[in-house]
Amino acid sequence: MAQDLIARIKALKTELAALEAVLPAPVSPLAPAGFPALPVIKGVRFAAAMAGVKYQGRTDVMLAEICEGAQMAGVFTRSTTRSAPVLRCEEALAAHVEAPDVAGKFAILVNSGNANAFTGGRGFESVDALRDCVAEALDCPAEKVFTASTGVIGEPLPHGRIEAAVDGLCAALDAGHAAAAATAIMTTDTFAKGAAAELELDGVPVKISGFAKGSGMIAPDMATMLVYIFTDAKISQKVLQQMLWLENASTFNCITVDGDTSTSDTLLLTATGRADMPVIDDFADPRARVFRKALQALMRDLAQQVARDGEGASKLIEVRVTGANSSGAAHRIAMSIANSPLVKTAVAGEDPNWGRVVMAVGKAGERADRDRLTIRFGDILVAENGWVAPSYTEEAGAAYMKQSEIVIAVDIGLDSGKATIWTCDLTHRYITINADYRS
Amino acid sequence: MAQDLIARIKALKTELAALEAVLPAPVSPLAPAGFPALPVIKGVRFAAAMAGVKYQGRTDVMLAEICEGAQMAGVFTRSTTRSAPVLRCEEALAAHVEAPDVAGKFAILVNSGNANAFTGGRGFESVDALRDCVAEALDCPAEKVFTASTGVIGEPLPHGRIEAAVDGLCAALDAGHAAAAATAIMTTDTFAKGAAAELELDGVPVKISGFAKGSGMIAPDMATMLVYIFTDAKISQKVLQQMLWLENASTFNCITVDGDTSTSDTLLLTATGRADMPVIDDFADPRARVFRKALQALMRDLAQQVARDGEGASKLIEVRVTGANSSGAAHRIAMSIANSPLVKTAVAGEDPNWGRVVMAVGKAGERADRDRLTIRFGDILVAENGWVAPSYTEEAGAAYMKQSEIVIAVDIGLDSGKATIWTCDLTHRYITINADYRS
Repeated sequence: MAQDLIARIKALKTELAALEAVLPAPVSPLAPAGFPALPVIKGVRFAAAMAGVKYQGRTDVMLAEICEGAQMAGVFTRSTTRSAPVLRCEEALAAHVEAPDVAGKFAILVNSGNANAFTGGRGFESVDALRDCVAEALDCPAEKVFTASTGVIGEPLPHGRIEAAVDGLCAALDAGHAAAAATAIMTTDTFAKGAAAELELDGVPVKISGFAKGSGMIAPDMATMLVYIFTDAKISQKVLQQMLWLENASTFNCITVDGDTSTSDTLLLTATGRADMPVIDDFADPRARVFRKALQALMRDLAQQVARDGEGASKLIEVRVTGANSSGAAHRIAMSIANSPLVKTAVAGEDPNWGRVVMAVGKAGERADRDRLTIRFGDILVAENGWVAPSYTEEAGAAYMKQSEIVIAVDIGLDSGKATIWTCDLTHRYITINADYRS
Repeated sequence: MAQDLIARIKALKTELAALEAVLPAPVSPLAPAGFPALPVIKGVRFAAAMAGVKYQGRTDVMLAEICEGAQMAGVFTRSTTRSAPVLRCEEALAAHVEAPDVAGKFAILVNSGNANAFTGGRGFESVDALRDCVAEALDCPAEKVFTASTGVIGEPLPHGRIEAAVDGLCAALDAGHAAAAATAIMTTDTFAKGAAAELELDGVPVKISGFAKGSGMIAPDMATMLVYIFTDAKISQKVLQQMLWLENASTFNCITVDGDTSTSDTLLLTATGRADMPVIDDFADPRARVFRKALQALMRDLAQQVARDGEGASKLIEVRVTGANSSGAAHRIAMSIANSPLVKTAVAGEDPNWGRVVMAVGKAGERADRDRLTIRFGDILVAENGWVAPSYTEEAGAAYMKQSEIVIAVDIGLDSGKATIWTCDLTHRYITINADYRS
């Protein structure tokens, strides 16, 4: 009897694996309705091409050309094993910070299919060859060419294939091609991610447009998060960089899929200065606050899209922690909940398993007092005073967990530190993507 | 076409889920051949019973009675949301440390099926009622009764059912019933875990016997690791506690299944002193070193059995980190690798994906230099000098990954810090256990 059962299960699994292998990856059920119409940013042009780095029959390289006089800000992965392109970008950004007004255009060249990470000295040779190639084709300084690579790790980047595509990319540059650029940098992403904002700074209309790739904080083979944001606002490098750091802390640094940190994460913010406005060169300028607000909303939108496309995601989870000893403590407690495999599998199983939330608070290594915790699922009070709330019913909890967007709110009851983290659930599909087939 | 495929996949999954629900949980493929013959420890008797706390038709409570004059040492979870039994055990141990020679027997009472965690004031009432009940039945001080509970969280412990079983337990006490005790405390464990050692201290034969439960560092509903070790050696409380701390650091603190930390972890070491030997009351006593060596081997054996029974485990993974800046740094890097979902799914998929090991080193937050890393799978040199090793072939790596026990060895190349961690892979079965069915 048990033997028959096991044999039947084995047969089913074999058939299932074979079918799933030929099924095209489904678009995440949490994807937005479509890619937004990104406004043209004066001074920026995009192109995408098929270089055949690894993928066939799809675009896999994008070029962005940014006009003379623009300013650039960036943040990068803090991994100690970061890739050659990231290390070169860090150097380039440091040089730009030192001398923000060096003449010449900026360019951004990104390929998917190969991460050029852990490729020794050859990694740098590839980056340098590509920067020289783009610099010559666009007539800009090589020091102002930023590259990124995303895909398989440990294999030499066949940069000749990308070089061969550069002339075609230059010829195809167009201010309206941002969507094509966003698509070319996808790896295991199931949808392209874009966001835009239009605002006024003292009556001057300004636009921000951005796109991102990332299927979780990390996707297979470290093919992970890249984000490019462009604005026509006129902002000094120093203020631009400050804004990016600040807003990154509450947006891209607040998402996680599996707690794994990429070797390749890159986020660049470019201001072309083509809007007809006096420069913002003081962080205290009231216009800076208006711009930051719009930038934050756009970055949060893109960050949430990355969480929505987390590998295997079937539910978006927002973890809100309040009442912690500090905002840092709140962040670490929220991350402990958001990264807990037991919390994430409970959400996948639509199980209102609040005990696992208690566990994740307890292991975070931050001050917490069992008897002062308050836990809510959405608006439903689940636990307080060290025990399940008298008003809570399993039925109410179970009904709430059927939604596709889940809010887990924890009040620590100690002080005013707070943080919000976005993540997704942990499903069979995550295992399928990362274990069942050789990557 | 795609629609047909999706419909067929859905039908297969439904059938699969129905079949797996009725299939008894299979014993882990990594389980030892059988439960070892545990030697009788003079001064300790065990009993198990069916109290019906939650499970039906199986034993779910065990009692250990320890003779007058014994010494006890313990370590507990560091969770800030630890359970009422853990908090009471901590108090009891602190009192014992203060006055190690208070007259009276020790007792240990453990139930499975309910963790008595996050149960507010009622949690303490249950613990106190059980301690009083056992104290009366065994004629020992309530302060010397240690309890533990493991199972579902947030539900009041129906301690009356356990109280009703205490007289029967006392009547059944027998020095040979350790295996029954080990079985009664299982929750999602797929096998009972025991280990034993016999050694000589200056010619005096001494025995150590221990058992553990745990299906990973954490099992569903925080029903997690409990370990009880007994010896007839004569050792002072102070030395016993020092030994336990030291050996715990390199054994139970070096296993992880999912990085989640339990509210209930409890490890007690009892020395009855019934062996005919002078007391070991100095850590520098040469016999202490002999005893520690045997204790370490036994604790490592039990710890590895817990990793072997990790939820859904199909492979045991040993992560060896050497050459780190300190042993603490080595431990954190090894844990970063052992807890990485991408490393664990790669092992499940028999994919020699060393890039994910590089990623996990990079994210650990410890000093590491990409170009000084050396990575080995077993004896196979995989990567060195910042790139894949010239001698490495994917075929060799893939063949190695088919084994059921995998060693991932990373040399950081900086200093002499080292650590070894044991874990298991991350499989569909982990998701099935934790997400597919309501717990």
